[in-house]
Amino acid sequence: MDQHPLVVFTPSGKRGRFAPGTPVLTAARQLGVDLDSVCGGRGICSKCQVSPAYGDFPKHGVTVHDTALSPWNAVEARYDEKRGLKSGRRLGCQALIQGDVVIDVPPESQVHRQVVRKAATDRTIAMDPATRLYFVTVDEPDMHAPEGDVERLRSALDRQWQVTGATADTALLARLQGVLRKGAWQVTVAVFDDHTGAPPRILDIWPGLHEGGLYGLAIDLGSTTIAAHLTDLATGAVVASSGLMNPQIRFGEDLMSRVSYAMMNPGGETEMTRAVRDALNDLARTIAAEAHIDPRLIMETVFVCNPVMHHLLLGFDPVELGQAPFALVTSDALSLPARDLELSAINPCARTYILPCIAGHVGADAAAVALSEEPHKSPDLVLVVDVGTNAEILLGNTTRVLACSSPTGPAFEGAQISSGQRAAPGAIERIEIAPATKTPRFRVIGCDLWSDDPGFAEATATTGVTGICGSGIIEAVAEMRMAGLLDPSGLIGSAAQTGTDRCEPDGRTHAYLIHDGSADNGPRITVTQSDIRAIQLAKSALYAGARLLMDEMGVDTVDRVVLAGAFGAHISPKHAMVLGMIPDAPLDKVVSAGNAAGTGARIALCNRAARAEIEQVVRHITKVETAIEPRFQEHFVAANAIPHATASFPELSKHVTLPQVGFNAGSDREGRRRRRRG
Amino acid sequence: MDQHPLVVFTPSGKRGRFAPGTPVLTAARQLGVDLDSVCGGRGICSKCQVSPAYGDFPKHGVTVHDTALSPWNAVEARYDEKRGLKSGRRLGCQALIQGDVVIDVPPESQVHRQVVRKAATDRTIAMDPATRLYFVTVDEPDMHAPEGDVERLRSALDRQWQVTGATADTALLARLQGVLRKGAWQVTVAVFDDHTGAPPRILDIWPGLHEGGLYGLAIDLGSTTIAAHLTDLATGAVVASSGLMNPQIRFGEDLMSRVSYAMMNPGGETEMTRAVRDALNDLARTIAAEAHIDPRLIMETVFVCNPVMHHLLLGFDPVELGQAPFALVTSDALSLPARDLELSAINPCARTYILPCIAGHVGADAAAVALSEEPHKSPDLVLVVDVGTNAEILLGNTTRVLACSSPTGPAFEGAQISSGQRAAPGAIERIEIAPATKTPRFRVIGCDLWSDDPGFAEATATTGVTGICGSGIIEAVAEMRMAGLLDPSGLIGSAAQTGTDRCEPDGRTHAYLIHDGSADNGPRITVTQSDIRAIQLAKSALYAGARLLMDEMGVDTVDRVVLAGAFGAHISPKHAMVLGMIPDAPLDKVVSAGNAAGTGARIALCNRAARAEIEQVVRHITKVETAIEPRFQEHFVAANAIPHATASFPELSKHVTLPQVGFNAGSDREGRRRRRRG
Repeated sequence: MDQHPLVVFTPSGKRGRFAPGTPVLTAARQLGVDLDSVCGGRGICSKCQVSPAYGDFPKHGVTVHDTALSPWNAVEARYDEKRGLKSGRRLGCQALIQGDVVIDVPPESQVHRQVVRKAATDRTIAMDPATRLYFVTVDEPDMHAPEGDVERLRSALDRQWQVTGATADTALLARLQGVLRKGAWQVTVAVFDDHTGAPPRILDIWPGLHEGGLYGLAIDLGSTTIAAHLTDLATGAVVASSGLMNPQIRFGEDLMSRVSYAMMNPGGETEMTRAVRDALNDLARTIAAEAHIDPRLIMETVFVCNPVMHHLLLGFDPVELGQAPFALVTSDALSLPARDLELSAINPCARTYILPCIAGHVGADAAAVALSEEPHKSPDLVLVVDVGTNAEILLGNTTRVLACSSPTGPAFEGAQISSGQRAAPGAIERIEIAPATKTPRFRVIGCDLWSDDPGFAEATATTGVTGICGSGIIEAVAEMRMAGLLDPSGLIGSAAQTGTDRCEPDGRTHAYLIHDGSADNGPRITVTQSDIRAIQLAKSALYAGARLLMDEMGVDTVDRVVLAGAFGAHISPKHAMVLGMIPDAPLDKVVSAGNAAGTGARIALCNRAARAEIEQVVRHITKVETAIEPRFQEHFVAANAIPHATASFPELSKHVTLPQVGFNAGSDREGRRRRRRG
Repeated sequence: MDQHPLVVFTPSGKRGRFAPGTPVLTAARQLGVDLDSVCGGRGICSKCQVSPAYGDFPKHGVTVHDTALSPWNAVEARYDEKRGLKSGRRLGCQALIQGDVVIDVPPESQVHRQVVRKAATDRTIAMDPATRLYFVTVDEPDMHAPEGDVERLRSALDRQWQVTGATADTALLARLQGVLRKGAWQVTVAVFDDHTGAPPRILDIWPGLHEGGLYGLAIDLGSTTIAAHLTDLATGAVVASSGLMNPQIRFGEDLMSRVSYAMMNPGGETEMTRAVRDALNDLARTIAAEAHIDPRLIMETVFVCNPVMHHLLLGFDPVELGQAPFALVTSDALSLPARDLELSAINPCARTYILPCIAGHVGADAAAVALSEEPHKSPDLVLVVDVGTNAEILLGNTTRVLACSSPTGPAFEGAQISSGQRAAPGAIERIEIAPATKTPRFRVIGCDLWSDDPGFAEATATTGVTGICGSGIIEAVAEMRMAGLLDPSGLIGSAAQTGTDRCEPDGRTHAYLIHDGSADNGPRITVTQSDIRAIQLAKSALYAGARLLMDEMGVDTVDRVVLAGAFGAHISPKHAMVLGMIPDAPLDKVVSAGNAAGTGARIALCNRAARAEIEQVVRHITKVETAIEPRFQEHFVAANAIPHATASFPELSKHVTLPQVGFNAGSDREGRRRRRRG
């Protein structure tokens, strides 16, 4: 008896023998090869494209003849004519196996394709979305077996796709009969199944084959800004990103002032909930328009946010979060209809997933950072700092993970800084101050030239130089210290003390002039004493939170530091360390991870197993409450000084010349260390 | 070693030995005795009252001394003082076992108590509601184990009541923190669990012990009327009943005219949905006010209705139900939030259950009749006829059950009858016509006297005699036939033919005068020829449906007939048979079951297992579609005549004198039978 042809799939290497005449798609399914198909092999969707290879394959032990697959057929010809099929491609549902063959599944034909993150750490996201499309052929109604239309649709999903017991909203059912008849009993349904044991849910239905795709929104709902990534749920591609200011700012800049607003104003929390939900609907409409998609194709939203924003999004009064014991209404992850949050701009059956909160002060944003940066999988002891209006801080390794939140305030985001502004074209983002001349040079967002490069003025003519953004102010303060313009306590020296007229009198203190645009009606950009104080408070809070976790862990150093946050990617590790924002670590072990919370949201959006994973991980994170921990105050006070680089930072000394003595007797790094151990 | 005391519970007979000091409630729980408790043994709710018995009990083999239980304690004394405890009663959670004892659990202390139906058949409903109250003590928040409030509530429900994984709407969660703190961490929660595999759902929460009870609405949503029973979910007692006209009547009297309205008017189905939902909210408010309860204590609604009303309630366009193959949007039972039906008058988290539809023309009302009358459990072949604007007809026994629906029109409900009216005080409901004198006597609703009894005029002075209700018109037509006023074809004879001036000329036909109230400004109540025709059409449709099922079953007679329907209880079996509404059956085997559909709704409301049962039963009912069955038309035409009783009805001949010959040569029962078999 003849042996059946051998079929080898690449890149998986899965192989098996199949009777001649077996479609490639059928063989792939039987072997568990990851080959996509929406229409289930009907030659409609073209998702199952494969690339057969011909010739000798000694590695696989086969020789592939050009008769290995059935000839190109009418279905493929029609598809090629209408849409174009890449050279060498076949439709897996049409090509029949006739002889030994090696078949490559290109990435775009894989359901569980890997999406490479654009961030520095280069992590990949495995696609396994909760919402998928299924093309089904539904039995026509039969008077003698009078099941309803949805029951026959349900049977078809079960038989044709092994999707069992799917349910649907009554509002969707109201459209069902029309769609089934318009599609002549062939329809595409979007089914949500998050593998939590709840029955699969039909979110939408289209007559015939739906080719418009499905989308999700990964939303980082911050105190100050709301950022969203519109993501293709089949490919994981971010098709548009957009952000806006959190409109709750008018009720209070920081979280505690919003909690106070809710306490002082009856119905205040409802007002704030209304404001953020309206903003989210605006954002959804804007981002859909930007990507030229119908916002009703947005089937899922995933939120990461701090506990106060979490409660205000959900319509919960945040007042308990303003006082010990900081009781959350709910700490677990939530999976609920998006309409419960009045997200009316997107699909009316869309779903929302909100990551779990770790504690009353450590929210779903910290959980998202943990999902993205995976400290629980790190063999090294890693400190992850997500810098925002609140800093989320994680410290841990495979053995144990600790978390806390620290109220840094908005200074790191350029707020409460005299010349501060949001990161936008025209904002100063990089600064160097020559220690000898005390003269600054800088770069602004939107221009690659330094301010002392030829052509800078022309290149920045449209944007101008408008202010300093968060990463710019950090560099400015660190550079001022390294140039000897600040003493270790943070005091700006006078022109006489520093030897530069740029240190101008400013009331009873001094300010340092970075850029004078007044001749062209532009701003005079200075760093004032109160700017320095705001940064000192913020960095002390951040440093104290990290130290508190290190105390709890019983360590004095960490192996790696990851700087995250909406602007974390832009912070210069060197300057952060000079400033004393973060504990000592080898400079090459300090990396930026970009918006780790936003990335965590994208991971949870694209991969339902990641949701289960972070829910599990969060249960094992030890929470440390900064607000009631006396040592936090001690660390905070001790961290106020701005250290200067010493021999313990050889990397820094390569780049900068360090003044050895300040102009008054503030505390220095060594002094602080002694106190900390005392 | 001493043997532990023996405890015997009655009426269950469950027994066991328990260590001295064991509370009676604990013993009952360990033995699986059905003893209620909301507070879980905290001496708060008083639901666990028991009656210990003292003396010799040879049957149980024990002698009970008056020291068998611990003495009356302070908790019981306080409860007795505040609320009163019936003589001999103890609180099961307070009384401790000290010696052999016999303890009776009175019906009101049983969770699964039996509720006796008031209807003729005397069926009982076992209480097993989906929504129950639980009193719980919730752990206070702890900063070092920062679970949310709802997670701690969930743990408490699990630990204290074995209610696992309860979820809640975000709107309820928004109130949670306030209630927990107001109740000092002791709260009562209403939990819905219908045992379908979905997680239990918290529907409401109250600080401390909630003593206001929980209620449900069993709703029979008919084409013409909407009837609701407000039911105590703990006891099963109907605390109020109310009804109103279906406001959709303005869009069409019968179902098909409403389907036409939806077809002809874009958005017409939305208008009708709006109308019925508004009416349901009105009804809920009215019935709650009548029972002096807060409508927010209504936690569940159960609906029974025909397929068109089913679709219009759910917001589905009924147009497919107007044409073969009569495809339902959904045939399965539905369990959904009541707010999906915009039932805003009741608890915002309330649940709705809608019984399954059997087919496109055989609705959830027929399923409810099956649940109430249980033809599938009958050893005899039983015909169940639910009379309304549509008649639901079931025929079957333990082997097989058939079902169909027949479009009788509203004549049986007194509509489309010249002097017809709804069943209300003043309506004629019973009529007798003396065959010799052709003189009628009658009774009206609200008065026990016959019209020829002394004092009738005085007794009906306030209501008057206003018209004829459905059961009255059936009796009138049957009596007219038996008195020789009608020939077998249904023609009313002239005064000359019948020998009575009450047969008055009425255009080209005649009318029979039943009551002349014109002297007192009251109506002249007559039965006209077109009234007779309307009744003939209705009864022919009913009879033809029943015959169709009998054909399908291959039988020519049935063992029993059950007349059901909102007015089914009032139909006289004798007159129904004279009229030819129902097939021949021994008169003593024809019983009225009252509003069986409404009873089915109450059963499903009070017992979640009944929901699973009817969903199962419906799958095994064979559906017969009258609308496309040619034999239905044949039966319908053949059934038009009004037979008179013959020797085959000996029971009738005891009561009535039968004229043997009509005044023209219409068909008679024998003639009809011959045609049917031909």
